[in-house]
Amino acid sequence: MNFLEQKIAAEGKVLSESVLKVDSFLNHQVDPQLMQKIGEEFAKLFSDAGITKIVTLESSGIAPAVMTGLRLNVPVVFARKRKSLTLVDGLYSAEVHSFTKRETNEISVSKDYLTSDDVVLILDDFLANGQAVLGLMDIVNQAGAKLVGVGIVIEKGFQQGGQLLREKGIRVESLAIIDSLTNGEVTFKREATHV
Amino acid sequence: MNFLEQKIAAEGKVLSESVLKVDSFLNHQVDPQLMQKIGEEFAKLFSDAGITKIVTLESSGIAPAVMTGLRLNVPVVFARKRKSLTLVDGLYSAEVHSFTKRETNEISVSKDYLTSDDVVLILDDFLANGQAVLGLMDIVNQAGAKLVGVGIVIEKGFQQGGQLLREKGIRVESLAIIDSLTNGEVTFKREATHV
Repeated sequence: MNFLEQKIAAEGKVLSESVLKVDSFLNHQVDPQLMQKIGEEFAKLFSDAGITKIVTLESSGIAPAVMTGLRLNVPVVFARKRKSLTLVDGLYSAEVHSFTKRETNEISVSKDYLTSDDVVLILDDFLANGQAVLGLMDIVNQAGAKLVGVGIVIEKGFQQGGQLLREKGIRVESLAIIDSLTNGEVTFKREATHV
Repeated sequence: MNFLEQKIAAEGKVLSESVLKVDSFLNHQVDPQLMQKIGEEFAKLFSDAGITKIVTLESSGIAPAVMTGLRLNVPVVFARKRKSLTLVDGLYSAEVHSFTKRETNEISVSKDYLTSDDVVLILDDFLANGQAVLGLMDIVNQAGAKLVGVGIVIEKGFQQGGQLLREKGIRVESLAIIDSLTNGEVTFKREATHV
């Protein structure tokens, strides 16, 4: 197991066959040393991609994204979530449906901070159905920026997001891929051990 | 001017006599190198306070808090904002009114991540009326934890929050204190130049 899989095995709470809670180091309490290691791994994986900007989504994407940006020496933009669908000038917007929360949010990024000159790495904490990443990709497309890949801290390999993105030809790098959460236990997919 | 005041002077947008927008490096786009410097400053200021935990509020507090936590080698907890006032077991909650957004949010922290053993530094991006910090202090009190101080990236010195907290005997360290935003210009208070 890599450092992240070890942390998940030690502290992750399996709430159901599809829900893993990692509130102790990623989604509520944040472990800064772990975030630094995560940032170093993403920076290594995408070091030669010519990235000019990292795009993530508030709130749990911010810590790993900022640590990656620190290492790659590029700015981070976090898309904002809003309930209301008010069209505001100067924003790129996309709709993101959350199956877990059963709600649709509008996410948006200011046109000031994403342009056609940007080479973008999308980063997020979890990849499940891929809806958040697809929303962020929509925004990157609207800006005319170039997407070089997607970095994910924890991918739920038993849900469709990863396959969906990889079938589109997107480079997806997940630091931990969960194969199953059956019987209250976390099983990892062997392929995510390059870390 | 210190490094942060220089950044504010160069990139901050004065939208009115009370509103300063720093979306290019703190509230939407994030400058990871600047966040690292901010983290180093807070860590220096509070190095001998015996801090065991940093408490902040999603989303803009996360980046400076995680960088400070990295330097102090302590975990960060970000309080979550929710619209609904549903009482949930296992949470410390407080109400925070935003004068800017004219809405009241409930903020909450899991009882799992804040206990009476904790020595807490509260960190936030902005200090204006002090409502967010008072809400976080309420949560720290509920947990029976010890508060050693409040670190603020940008304090609006012309609003009441800073005075209110200092009159309560709270140690407030602001890396930049804005004296006024009159005539579209940012004027800093001279005392915040210890950085």
